[in-house]
Amino acid sequence: MTWRATVLTLFPEMFPGPLGISLAGKALTTRLWALDIHDIRSSATDRHRSVDDTPAGGGPGMVLRADVLAKAIDSVETSPDRPRLLMSPRGRPLTQSWVMELAAGPGPLIVCGRFEGVDQRVIEARGLEEVSIGDYVLSGGEIAAMALIDACVRLLPGVMGKAESGEDESFSHGLLEYPQYTRPQDFEGRPIPDVLLSGDHAKVAGWRRSASEALTEARRPDLWAARNRQNPPKSKTDG
Amino acid sequence: MTWRATVLTLFPEMFPGPLGISLAGKALTTRLWALDIHDIRSSATDRHRSVDDTPAGGGPGMVLRADVLAKAIDSVETSPDRPRLLMSPRGRPLTQSWVMELAAGPGPLIVCGRFEGVDQRVIEARGLEEVSIGDYVLSGGEIAAMALIDACVRLLPGVMGKAESGEDESFSHGLLEYPQYTRPQDFEGRPIPDVLLSGDHAKVAGWRRSASEALTEARRPDLWAARNRQNPPKSKTDG
Repeated sequence: MTWRATVLTLFPEMFPGPLGISLAGKALTTRLWALDIHDIRSSATDRHRSVDDTPAGGGPGMVLRADVLAKAIDSVETSPDRPRLLMSPRGRPLTQSWVMELAAGPGPLIVCGRFEGVDQRVIEARGLEEVSIGDYVLSGGEIAAMALIDACVRLLPGVMGKAESGEDESFSHGLLEYPQYTRPQDFEGRPIPDVLLSGDHAKVAGWRRSASEALTEARRPDLWAARNRQNPPKSKTDG
Repeated sequence: MTWRATVLTLFPEMFPGPLGISLAGKALTTRLWALDIHDIRSSATDRHRSVDDTPAGGGPGMVLRADVLAKAIDSVETSPDRPRLLMSPRGRPLTQSWVMELAAGPGPLIVCGRFEGVDQRVIEARGLEEVSIGDYVLSGGEIAAMALIDACVRLLPGVMGKAESGEDESFSHGLLEYPQYTRPQDFEGRPIPDVLLSGDHAKVAGWRRSASEALTEARRPDLWAARNRQNPPKSKTDG
């Protein structure tokens, strides 16, 4: 079965957009994954094709209607084991381990929110899991859905070459990635660190691990604390 | 001065993409903001137009060259007070308060990373601040840049109508947004909560605040703890 992302949106013309180019785009063309786009507006029931209404209790903006979105979700033929996600800043934060889980499955159905929000009752009635790509607010869920899909697609078998494998990247061991260098050897008087040119693989690996640890501790005390809870650092004498 | 995003990328054809549609797209057309796209490959110096090379010290993937990216950055005419950002999972996490700061300024220069990473020396020599949109890995910085730009643009004067104003949304008071409801009043046997139909504005506001607090405490203990450090909850007798 091909991994498939099924997206429900009010702006179908945004897709595939950046997902049709570069790594994800090549993989889409060669059918390593599939993308279905559904226009929520096709499920509107009145002659104005309205999809939203004012919030009960007052307040700014417009809320996506439960009945219209439910009809849109129900009109998509999809197996019940696929995750059903709603992109929303209120959601559970997306992490690399969740991405890995999603990439290993059949692929999600993704609802892109718009306006002030989505009627809570359809979230509950259709079992949508709210997912947030970060602690900021976008004008809609479409770019968030693209981020989630791109993160998953690059992990699918055959999408990245072996040479690009994601083993040594940020979050793969609960750490940020070490600094990278490439030719030229001298850039504006700044040399590549000697150890990286030494040819001593153990030394290179040690330098990189230390650099990753120092960067993570300095920039992301939250990740550093989480890692040390799971994986207590070895005693200093091991090094 | 119009707010301006200047993007350096190896995939200029990805832009404006979703930023050319809907809220950000309308605002781009009416010149409420501006978008400059620069192709990093134009700054390649050899006849193969190569922009990357293998990592010093070995390892998978390719690293974006310091000299090529420095030349690309230097070729962009830009005032020195604009923030210079590099989209990278190693970066400082983007938050709504950082978005507000960026939206209030002249607009950033944004470098989209690709491959395994970017040569560390150009990050240092050109003062790039690394920014991460979340704890997951994308195939490149382009979709991340779109998320950052979209989040900023919606806050620019004139982009959202008064009716859509972002005052009551997630993160605006360190809380997730309360649940929303709209017509129809009955959806599959699920009614809108009575309080929201009461017409009693104080009761509605109280219900929403409690719902926001309960949701934040349940879903995001990290945000909840941060808020209570800054803003200790009032004693129960106040309610």
